[in-house]
Amino acid sequence: MLQFGKIAIIGAGNVSYTLCKLLKNKGIEPFYVLVRDSEKAKTMHEDLGVEVVSSYEKVLESDLTIIAVKDDVISEVATHLVDYKGLVVHTSGTKSSELLNKSKRYGVFYPLQTMSKKREISFDEIPLLIYANSSDDVESLSRFAKQFSNKVVLCDDDQRKAIHLAAVYVSNFTNVMLGIGDKLLKKNGIALDVMRPLVMEMMQKSFEISPEKALTGPARRGDFATIGEHEKMLSDNPDELAIYMILTDYIIENYQKNEKL
Amino acid sequence: MLQFGKIAIIGAGNVSYTLCKLLKNKGIEPFYVLVRDSEKAKTMHEDLGVEVVSSYEKVLESDLTIIAVKDDVISEVATHLVDYKGLVVHTSGTKSSELLNKSKRYGVFYPLQTMSKKREISFDEIPLLIYANSSDDVESLSRFAKQFSNKVVLCDDDQRKAIHLAAVYVSNFTNVMLGIGDKLLKKNGIALDVMRPLVMEMMQKSFEISPEKALTGPARRGDFATIGEHEKMLSDNPDELAIYMILTDYIIENYQKNEKL
Repeated sequence: MLQFGKIAIIGAGNVSYTLCKLLKNKGIEPFYVLVRDSEKAKTMHEDLGVEVVSSYEKVLESDLTIIAVKDDVISEVATHLVDYKGLVVHTSGTKSSELLNKSKRYGVFYPLQTMSKKREISFDEIPLLIYANSSDDVESLSRFAKQFSNKVVLCDDDQRKAIHLAAVYVSNFTNVMLGIGDKLLKKNGIALDVMRPLVMEMMQKSFEISPEKALTGPARRGDFATIGEHEKMLSDNPDELAIYMILTDYIIENYQKNEKL
Repeated sequence: MLQFGKIAIIGAGNVSYTLCKLLKNKGIEPFYVLVRDSEKAKTMHEDLGVEVVSSYEKVLESDLTIIAVKDDVISEVATHLVDYKGLVVHTSGTKSSELLNKSKRYGVFYPLQTMSKKREISFDEIPLLIYANSSDDVESLSRFAKQFSNKVVLCDDDQRKAIHLAAVYVSNFTNVMLGIGDKLLKKNGIALDVMRPLVMEMMQKSFEISPEKALTGPARRGDFATIGEHEKMLSDNPDELAIYMILTDYIIENYQKNEKL
């Protein structure tokens, strides 16, 4: 089978919500969403106009089931799909596909993006990392995914876990850096927004010429006078100072200081 | 005086280069660039078609001098401008304006952006942080700056230093996070580019709804199973592991875990 007929989505979180909107927008149907919590089910139905069900009956009739629930609930959901004939995938960046191996056909459908109910995102460029335990299902899942994205990537569990770990640095930890910047600016009555052009240009530059080549700043040029002044300015912020010091040391140790900046 | 007649720029680095291109593009002239190194002078003249001089004679005749040299050379350059009648400003994010106080009229013209000779950047949205030691010169400098940017911000030394420190976090340190991501992905044969949509969306989201609200990930949701797994995966990378741990602790301690994500 190269085309999935009926599709089931399980969950009421940001990923489920976003996938439902996506299927709806692409006119892919029929699909059902299984939501246990009756209030969330109601909201989802009202917000998106999708068919929400509360039992596994319709899920078991589907050809593809996408489990879009919290990581630690995946195993429990999987117990309901032991006799399932279709392909079951989860959407976790970090959990093994083997969590689903009690079903005959299983895999992963992991959109590498941060999602929230309120934000519209364009799916075209979002990498969809897919995996399935048979080549037929890899092909079907790939074809399914290509309806939404130009970047469908076949990825085994280890690669996906490496990507998820890297994502913690490039997404969560970069965010923390903005949070610290925000905190330091607020103390001086300045809004974070002043940083926006700098941040966006630095990110684009890093992707275009590589982070290493794009890096500037006092640590990169070995400007210890400025580093010393910064550390003094951070004396009332011990946590932020510790982060400043470990990252400054990291730059000094890992990047060639003598390179022309 | 509300309009500067002749303008001099001192330096041959990225900032000088970018400012020269800008003045040239805007048709603002006459302006001279003082470059000591004859090879750099030649390149600059050939690349940009600007008038490059090698002595302070023409600089002293100008109405505005922009010192765009490395931080630790500013003081030395300033000694040549003791009898200067015009307004002299430097372009440093971190150095005090008082470095120039041997001249009668002095200030700062700091473009908050990362610049390189090869990259074209649009100046319109770049914050130009300005300061001058008289209200007349603040007005003139502001008028001058507004020719290039919609975001001209009057900023004293302390505010500018706070912005520069914050910029280390939001620009240099975010860059380091991309560098670590790159390193971890390369080990698994994956190119950093797969992260681009995630990073750009996360940055935009952080500016739009605040970094704190935009933060997701295992530390934010207190997912210690995933954190433990990540730490295990990093056992061959002690430096990156130390950074993972300090930032994970920072998130756990500083962000409300019980907030709905």
